[in-house]
Amino acid sequence: MVDVVILGTIGIDTLKTPFGTAEDVIGGSAVYSSYAASFFSKPGMISIKGTDLKEEELSFLKERGVSLEGIKTEGSTFKWSGEYEFDMNEAKTLKTELNSLATFRPQIPQSYKEAKYLFLGNMDPQLQIEVIESVKNPELIIMDTMNFWIESQKEKVIEAIKKVDILVLNDGEARQLFETPNLIKAAKDALQLGLKAVIIKKGEHGSLLFTKEGHFNCPGYPLENLVDPTGCGDCFGGSFIGYYAKTKDMRKAMVYGSVIASYNAEGFGLENLRKITEQDVEGRYREMVALREF
Amino acid sequence: MVDVVILGTIGIDTLKTPFGTAEDVIGGSAVYSSYAASFFSKPGMISIKGTDLKEEELSFLKERGVSLEGIKTEGSTFKWSGEYEFDMNEAKTLKTELNSLATFRPQIPQSYKEAKYLFLGNMDPQLQIEVIESVKNPELIIMDTMNFWIESQKEKVIEAIKKVDILVLNDGEARQLFETPNLIKAAKDALQLGLKAVIIKKGEHGSLLFTKEGHFNCPGYPLENLVDPTGCGDCFGGSFIGYYAKTKDMRKAMVYGSVIASYNAEGFGLENLRKITEQDVEGRYREMVALREF
Repeated sequence: MVDVVILGTIGIDTLKTPFGTAEDVIGGSAVYSSYAASFFSKPGMISIKGTDLKEEELSFLKERGVSLEGIKTEGSTFKWSGEYEFDMNEAKTLKTELNSLATFRPQIPQSYKEAKYLFLGNMDPQLQIEVIESVKNPELIIMDTMNFWIESQKEKVIEAIKKVDILVLNDGEARQLFETPNLIKAAKDALQLGLKAVIIKKGEHGSLLFTKEGHFNCPGYPLENLVDPTGCGDCFGGSFIGYYAKTKDMRKAMVYGSVIASYNAEGFGLENLRKITEQDVEGRYREMVALREF
Repeated sequence: MVDVVILGTIGIDTLKTPFGTAEDVIGGSAVYSSYAASFFSKPGMISIKGTDLKEEELSFLKERGVSLEGIKTEGSTFKWSGEYEFDMNEAKTLKTELNSLATFRPQIPQSYKEAKYLFLGNMDPQLQIEVIESVKNPELIIMDTMNFWIESQKEKVIEAIKKVDILVLNDGEARQLFETPNLIKAAKDALQLGLKAVIIKKGEHGSLLFTKEGHFNCPGYPLENLVDPTGCGDCFGGSFIGYYAKTKDMRKAMVYGSVIASYNAEGFGLENLRKITEQDVEGRYREMVALREF
């Protein structure tokens, strides 16, 4: 029984950072966020892949209890190649091949329809809206977005935001979407759209939660061994919805999001994420408790 | 009886931000940090001003219990004019007139010599060293610095660092001084120089404390009404040493630093700082407690 439905991409990534390169590794927002959510809940993916990507290559997700029933197979897999410069805060896209993603229409399997939690990874806002409308009775919907959609389809992005409960986006995108350099003002504007909460991701600086009741400042885990930040935002979002589905605790869900994202950044692609255990996660969570204490 | 000796500048500033301008207002690192420290301790300034700046114009500091005995008067007052662009994170210097600051040799009045706490505001590292050597028996010395000295006198800066207990600097300066984009690595390198602690200021993102025992992540206060960030770093440092002198609690001292700096940013120059009360400070401190809770 799927608790959390996750819409996003499956991709084949080529990554370049100051610490090395990784060619043709599996990635995509649905992969990172489902893997992250699986530490806490039972996620079901909605995505598309090509015939070039074999079922077996996704079996590591199945082993973590992720349902792959909502994955279509068609044409070639979406490919992305990106580079990080010295400061590692933002990826520079070198090449994108949409392939089968270009004509993707998400379909929700019957077995996902009763799921109470929905995570809409960064994607065409029209598809995000279609998925919202096909889940029967969601308790909470979270939506991510990115600069590409804000620039090209801002009104559609706003229309989607009005249908969800929580918006999660990074600081640059928040400034862009609400046309202000001040994140607090951006968050207030976002809440005006009827959201329950807004979460602003700030990379190494952690994340901020805004609700009508108040703010929460979630630290970033202090990472000495940063290797590849690809997927950190998706890990954060996936952990958040996974932990929230289990506990309804937004603040702790953000802290777990920081923890999982920090492990993810310590290896290329999902390499390090696939090594860690529940014990590792709890260990770093305890460190997070200690580092905010005063 | 002075608890905390504060070395820094007294300046006449002209400030331009997206929210307006302020011409010829009193500023300088010693002024901001002494005012901030006065919420918690009895600071004594070491600085220089010109004959153009009347004693009365500094009387607001005296009223807060700040000793002005260590201020020399000579020539013309140091002048600085700076501008902040849309993101308000870094000042662009438009003009600097060193004036009497150019030949300043700090002298410690007899009444400061027994002070246990020393705050060395950003200044020529040679002068910082001279002040360190003239205080008899300090319990704790904190030093600030900036890119100008790191670029022009890096070895002297390192020599000064080796003589102090805590280094406080902003994130860009930490990256520059230790030649790494990774703040955690920079902080480890700094601790290797024999420091008890390193504090890295990150503007709106708060600040980080590194000691051999662990990290602390101090949130930035979420500020909707940011008007002029001039002096925020000095307010942070001054509050830190002032509160630390009273309590020996580094973490709480940083939180009070964030609080005072946030009030400072809500007005031009010291305008808003001069309006706030102990009650205001306690109120925002309680907000800081609430916003890190999870």
